[in-house]
Amino acid sequence: MQEIKKYVEDNKQRFLDELFELLRFPSVSADPKYKGDVLKTAAFVAEKLKEAGADKVEICETAGYPIIYGEKIIDAALPTVLIYGHYDVQPADPLELWHTPPFEPTVRDGKIYARGACDDKGQFYMHVKAFELMMKTNTLACNVKFMIEGEEEVGSSNLGVFVKANTERLKADVVLISDTSMISMENPSIETGLRGLAYMEVEVTGPNRDLHSGVYGGAVANPITILCKMIASLHDENNHITIPAFYDKVVDLTADEKAALNSAPFDLNDYKKDLDINAEWGEKGYSTLERTGTRPTLEVNGIWGGYIGEGAKTVLPSKASAKISMRLVPHQSSDEISAIFQQHFESIAPDFVKVKVTAHHGGEPVVTPTDSIAYRAAEKAILTSFGKKPIPTRGGGSIPIVALFEDVLGIKSVLLGFGLDSDALHSPNEKYDIFNYYKGIETLPLFHKYFAELSK
Amino acid sequence: MQEIKKYVEDNKQRFLDELFELLRFPSVSADPKYKGDVLKTAAFVAEKLKEAGADKVEICETAGYPIIYGEKIIDAALPTVLIYGHYDVQPADPLELWHTPPFEPTVRDGKIYARGACDDKGQFYMHVKAFELMMKTNTLACNVKFMIEGEEEVGSSNLGVFVKANTERLKADVVLISDTSMISMENPSIETGLRGLAYMEVEVTGPNRDLHSGVYGGAVANPITILCKMIASLHDENNHITIPAFYDKVVDLTADEKAALNSAPFDLNDYKKDLDINAEWGEKGYSTLERTGTRPTLEVNGIWGGYIGEGAKTVLPSKASAKISMRLVPHQSSDEISAIFQQHFESIAPDFVKVKVTAHHGGEPVVTPTDSIAYRAAEKAILTSFGKKPIPTRGGGSIPIVALFEDVLGIKSVLLGFGLDSDALHSPNEKYDIFNYYKGIETLPLFHKYFAELSK
Repeated sequence: MQEIKKYVEDNKQRFLDELFELLRFPSVSADPKYKGDVLKTAAFVAEKLKEAGADKVEICETAGYPIIYGEKIIDAALPTVLIYGHYDVQPADPLELWHTPPFEPTVRDGKIYARGACDDKGQFYMHVKAFELMMKTNTLACNVKFMIEGEEEVGSSNLGVFVKANTERLKADVVLISDTSMISMENPSIETGLRGLAYMEVEVTGPNRDLHSGVYGGAVANPITILCKMIASLHDENNHITIPAFYDKVVDLTADEKAALNSAPFDLNDYKKDLDINAEWGEKGYSTLERTGTRPTLEVNGIWGGYIGEGAKTVLPSKASAKISMRLVPHQSSDEISAIFQQHFESIAPDFVKVKVTAHHGGEPVVTPTDSIAYRAAEKAILTSFGKKPIPTRGGGSIPIVALFEDVLGIKSVLLGFGLDSDALHSPNEKYDIFNYYKGIETLPLFHKYFAELSK
Repeated sequence: MQEIKKYVEDNKQRFLDELFELLRFPSVSADPKYKGDVLKTAAFVAEKLKEAGADKVEICETAGYPIIYGEKIIDAALPTVLIYGHYDVQPADPLELWHTPPFEPTVRDGKIYARGACDDKGQFYMHVKAFELMMKTNTLACNVKFMIEGEEEVGSSNLGVFVKANTERLKADVVLISDTSMISMENPSIETGLRGLAYMEVEVTGPNRDLHSGVYGGAVANPITILCKMIASLHDENNHITIPAFYDKVVDLTADEKAALNSAPFDLNDYKKDLDINAEWGEKGYSTLERTGTRPTLEVNGIWGGYIGEGAKTVLPSKASAKISMRLVPHQSSDEISAIFQQHFESIAPDFVKVKVTAHHGGEPVVTPTDSIAYRAAEKAILTSFGKKPIPTRGGGSIPIVALFEDVLGIKSVLLGFGLDSDALHSPNEKYDIFNYYKGIETLPLFHKYFAELSK
């Protein structure tokens, strides 16, 4: 532990400078106009892996953005850890809400503000630096494989193909991922569940052209009004989702699971204060932690139609659209829920409009074991570096890749994340605490050490 | 009549060229970035009025865009016609739906395609050319005053001030306006009623920042969902507006008025075919002509919130907004309806969001007399040039200025429009038939002639 702390101490500034370099690339995978930047980011990641001491580093081409692979096999007899991360980031808009430019990392009271600071550049890069540390201090106790992709924020659509084509190369005993959050540095935690995702786009068409709302208003269905009525009908008065069969496969937690989940430190007043809301919202009969961790949800991620510029335009638009995504819990399937949604949404469309429903990427829900060697190694690593046993939690987010690994490679994952819910992932002013960054670099070598020991 | 036809025939091409010049100015009053173009348009209009023979032409400055004034007083004993029009146009977006550029007028099978072709450049410019014709042929039978403004599409907010300050200069016996439509060239008509307008913008705020829909979804109110539920609640199952007191001052038509209104040639199947809709929509118990001409309506003109770019972003947004306008019928007041809308919309906002309601421009509803000398002159002018007596109709649109004239100047208006409902006002590919343009130039001198004769 002392050796680790010393190495981090001696290289503090460089570790930060390198992360800043990485954060300056606007690697937005959702927007084609950043293609060149995303590719530059991939090259940068490969370069850094090589410098850290990885062998067989390769920029693996795919139908989309490349996947960076690298490995260090020290002894075939030792267990192997496959490290997954992603170098792409969410779009930065709405830009005007950022206090400092999203792609010019800025430090304010100990926090790094930048798009991707936490999700996932700041977190996967801890693994690159922890690997460098273990190489330089000759403390690497496991074989290590890196797989850093560039399409996580758009559904990892090409990763599945890559994994299926590289089962041999990716052989490992555990997948280690840092792309999740802890409750707090005082209450370290490990996520043991992730929700799946079904992401749909709907388009409602009324008249074949935009109309003058004075000449036609009141006599022709307004697609915005109709879309609003359709969206409004998707939740009932208890905020229960009204889509038939939506909950059929959802299993309620046992009393014990509920108790364990709700034992996590959580203060609803702080939560409301942080978000500046007067009242929380959600499915009747469930606590906030149950709603975000264990229940499926339906959220409208975007809506647009008609005139949205300055001033007033008296138009009755031809079309209105929305992006609607659903978070899924164990036993729900992304394809099945997408199909159920489409069928339902088309079924509630009235005569006077046409509806088009298309599916974006999806992902399957997963629950990771808490009784595995890998989980116990993670638990012990955190206990050592934080001085506290981590609380197992259920996160609301989705990392589709976790389910993919189980299916294709038959490997379970450990979600050893060092972020915080307040890091504003996917929001303006995303941040990552410098403290957490270094803390992660210190903790990860311990995981490898204990994983090797416990595997004996 | 022969003399008129000959003059139009001899100047056909020039009349068209001048209109095209006028249409090439992108005089979008709603968007500040066109300020320079709007001002150039004003100068062009003033220049053309001078060339046509108007005296005292002046570009009258206002707090907003200037008003062009010009006059020709031939004999104080003769009646005076005040011609009103506007040189500003609606925004052209969505641009991608235009078949040819909105500000490069293009002729396709006898129709001029351009923003403002009909509303209102093509229509007010007929008056300028008709005036030139009467001057050049020494047939001007009345005194004429022109008042062409540049803020009609944004609520004529400064025209009221101008009119109040210029009651002497604007003294007249009738206001003549061509900014409305006819049923068809085979069924000429004159609009005798206009609806008022109340135009609101609403903003619903949930959490104080955009959130990750996985981490917070299901536990925090989504402002888009809430806005949709609020908008959905504004119409009941009979498409009746649910705002308390909204209909209090609305007077139903008498059986005779209903009969007269519905006697206008109208084919619901053609209407649906033209708009490519399977079913019409509207307030239960009223015909389409009643819904657009005589009933107040509420339409969502625009809605936006969350991520509306390419691809998928899993965000639970902080805000969602909409532009909502209401068309008003006689006895309803724009300010009063704006106030009850705001009160109602705020009252239906649930705890877990904050709502902001602001009012854009409004306008009062009017009904123009069908028994006045001016109306009879218009009727006779159309009978002469079309060979058919015009049908009095009730239009759904709003020209706030008409009510203003009655209040401040005590002058009634005649709405002698030559457009068609199919002209796609406020829509992509707005057009105006060349035939209607020339027909208007031929008909307007007859109005002046008969107005002078009937006034004797």
